[in-house]
Amino acid sequence: MKSGLIPSSAVGQKINEWYRYIRTFSVPDAEILKAEIKQELDRMEPDSNLVLYYSLMEFRHQLMLDYLEPLEKLKIEDQPTLSEILDNIDNSQAGLKGLLDYYVNFFKGMFEFDKREFISAITYYKQAEKKLAFVSDHVERAEFYFKVAEAYYHMKQTYFSLIHIKNAYEIYVEQDTYNVRIIQCHFVFGVNLMDERRFEQAAKHFQHALQMAEKEQKAQLVGRALYNLGLCYYNQDRIGEAIPYFERAVDTFESQRIVNSLPQAYFLITLIYFKLGKKEKASEYHKRGYEYAKETDDPVYTVKFEWLQALYQAKPDEETISACFRYLEDKNLYADIEDLALEAAKYYYEQNCFKISSDYFLKVEEARKQIQRSEGLYEIEI
Amino acid sequence: MKSGLIPSSAVGQKINEWYRYIRTFSVPDAEILKAEIKQELDRMEPDSNLVLYYSLMEFRHQLMLDYLEPLEKLKIEDQPTLSEILDNIDNSQAGLKGLLDYYVNFFKGMFEFDKREFISAITYYKQAEKKLAFVSDHVERAEFYFKVAEAYYHMKQTYFSLIHIKNAYEIYVEQDTYNVRIIQCHFVFGVNLMDERRFEQAAKHFQHALQMAEKEQKAQLVGRALYNLGLCYYNQDRIGEAIPYFERAVDTFESQRIVNSLPQAYFLITLIYFKLGKKEKASEYHKRGYEYAKETDDPVYTVKFEWLQALYQAKPDEETISACFRYLEDKNLYADIEDLALEAAKYYYEQNCFKISSDYFLKVEEARKQIQRSEGLYEIEI
Repeated sequence: MKSGLIPSSAVGQKINEWYRYIRTFSVPDAEILKAEIKQELDRMEPDSNLVLYYSLMEFRHQLMLDYLEPLEKLKIEDQPTLSEILDNIDNSQAGLKGLLDYYVNFFKGMFEFDKREFISAITYYKQAEKKLAFVSDHVERAEFYFKVAEAYYHMKQTYFSLIHIKNAYEIYVEQDTYNVRIIQCHFVFGVNLMDERRFEQAAKHFQHALQMAEKEQKAQLVGRALYNLGLCYYNQDRIGEAIPYFERAVDTFESQRIVNSLPQAYFLITLIYFKLGKKEKASEYHKRGYEYAKETDDPVYTVKFEWLQALYQAKPDEETISACFRYLEDKNLYADIEDLALEAAKYYYEQNCFKISSDYFLKVEEARKQIQRSEGLYEIEI
Repeated sequence: MKSGLIPSSAVGQKINEWYRYIRTFSVPDAEILKAEIKQELDRMEPDSNLVLYYSLMEFRHQLMLDYLEPLEKLKIEDQPTLSEILDNIDNSQAGLKGLLDYYVNFFKGMFEFDKREFISAITYYKQAEKKLAFVSDHVERAEFYFKVAEAYYHMKQTYFSLIHIKNAYEIYVEQDTYNVRIIQCHFVFGVNLMDERRFEQAAKHFQHALQMAEKEQKAQLVGRALYNLGLCYYNQDRIGEAIPYFERAVDTFESQRIVNSLPQAYFLITLIYFKLGKKEKASEYHKRGYEYAKETDDPVYTVKFEWLQALYQAKPDEETISACFRYLEDKNLYADIEDLALEAAKYYYEQNCFKISSDYFLKVEEARKQIQRSEGLYEIEI
């Protein structure tokens, strides 16, 4: 997300609060929050789903006012209780209530997800899914499945991610104008399948994505598809086959000046050429990749390019290598540490430096332990 | 499961088939299958859930016959169509239909799970969960959550397992007579939390389980709780603290002659004493553990004890060690290979044999790749 923009999950959480005020008929609090949220909408990351939620809540807010207004003319003793009015609104607007319940839970889930409170995120997603029948629009439902599939992918709940992305995909393919989302579905299928080391199946999805992205002339997506295909072969240690994909990815990003995606792609193609012992080619890519990392103010890739340079030379520069790992440790980037330490372990193994090799293998073990210990499991009361 | 017994998931799958015949009014086929299933019940692993499903289906079978019988007296042209009769039964017995739908999906899920078709297992579990409202008995619902939580644990879908075991737990604690299930819930909480390296939380659950199991005087569960507590410390490399738990686990299993659980517990306590360099103690435990492995016809633990003996001596017996790994590879026991190779890598590292150490680290990497590539993801049509 661009810096300075408010995440939509935070605004969603505020709308949930607004709904609580509405349901307790706390008019002044509801009005204040409404105004606050309205302002935040202009500074929020784009999210059509949230805008829809806001409009629904505006409508619900007005309903509250409409129900309260005539009461003022009644004597106190003739006025219905607030809970009677609430039941009245809920019953006469069951569809609206269901829809709002859906959004409440969906945005609560997103909010918890951003905080990495995964169990509670899933609990809300499941609640939202139960209310999904109130969402009459197919594509809206597909959006739900898509978002949740993405979240489950990040939580490494692979099978659940695959099931939800399949639900989303099956809706999008029925539409005419959702090719970008279909491409993104293929990406979610593919990355999950890579986690399961189902590389052939993953590659099929990325190939589909590539063809569609080319047809749609979406350079960013073409580049991502190529990059993912490269990754597919790279992760199978078929690095020769990975090269053309990474090179085409780099060309695509470069020709369209999609510079933010360049350091990542340059990093792997450089690493491959170093591993193959093609130092000249590697140095050439290294130079450009390193420049892009600095141009895009990407400190992590800057460090990773320094690490490449330090490791793959006749006499590795141990001091720089250690400094790179220290930097990544300070940032808790354990997945990066795992990858780089494993490459270092293998490199030293090939150089017959077995002591250093096994030291790096031990570092891999340490990093993995840190990764397993992901954050955000709340304590279950016993 | 004891050998020779039919898994209940297979019988469940047959009852599903029987239901299909009932719904198409294929009386002879339904009768044959019914008789076949009735016989299989006697040779099936105990499963009260399945017996319930069978009784319900028997009732539904009888309904079919009751509806068909009066038709014989009618002229052909006056007879309602079969699909009209089906609607009639479904509508007049909506509760029964919902309940049967629940069981159909639950047992389909279990059947797919046994085949390691995890995506399709989850899809059926989700269907079953939607019909859970038709199950009026609390404890029945808890049983569903418990079974599914176990399945998700084995699929490494940790967060989903935790959510479902929490659902089960909250129902069981409201009952008076389900202490064994509550203990088992604590185990499922604990092993999931260990997967997340949340050892403190895991240990709390195992401690609760231990106290309850002692109160209930269930030696098997006392032993498991002690073993799991040992594992909790062992996995944190706090092997000194693990010792008393493993020793108490061994004592418990031994004094109650629960021999099947002995090789596993003996293995880790022996390994610990070898790692601590306490050879005498280690040899003593090794001798007994090895004997139990043979007594219980446990070829995998027999091999693992041979591996222990071969590795932890002044000059490791490389030939035997390799033979052990070959055995485990033949059996596709990659999780065991990962564990043993990692221990070997660390042992050789400490002995300053860095070449062999890094060879074993590479073996760890290979085993992990195999583990990640779990079976049973069906191809998603694109």
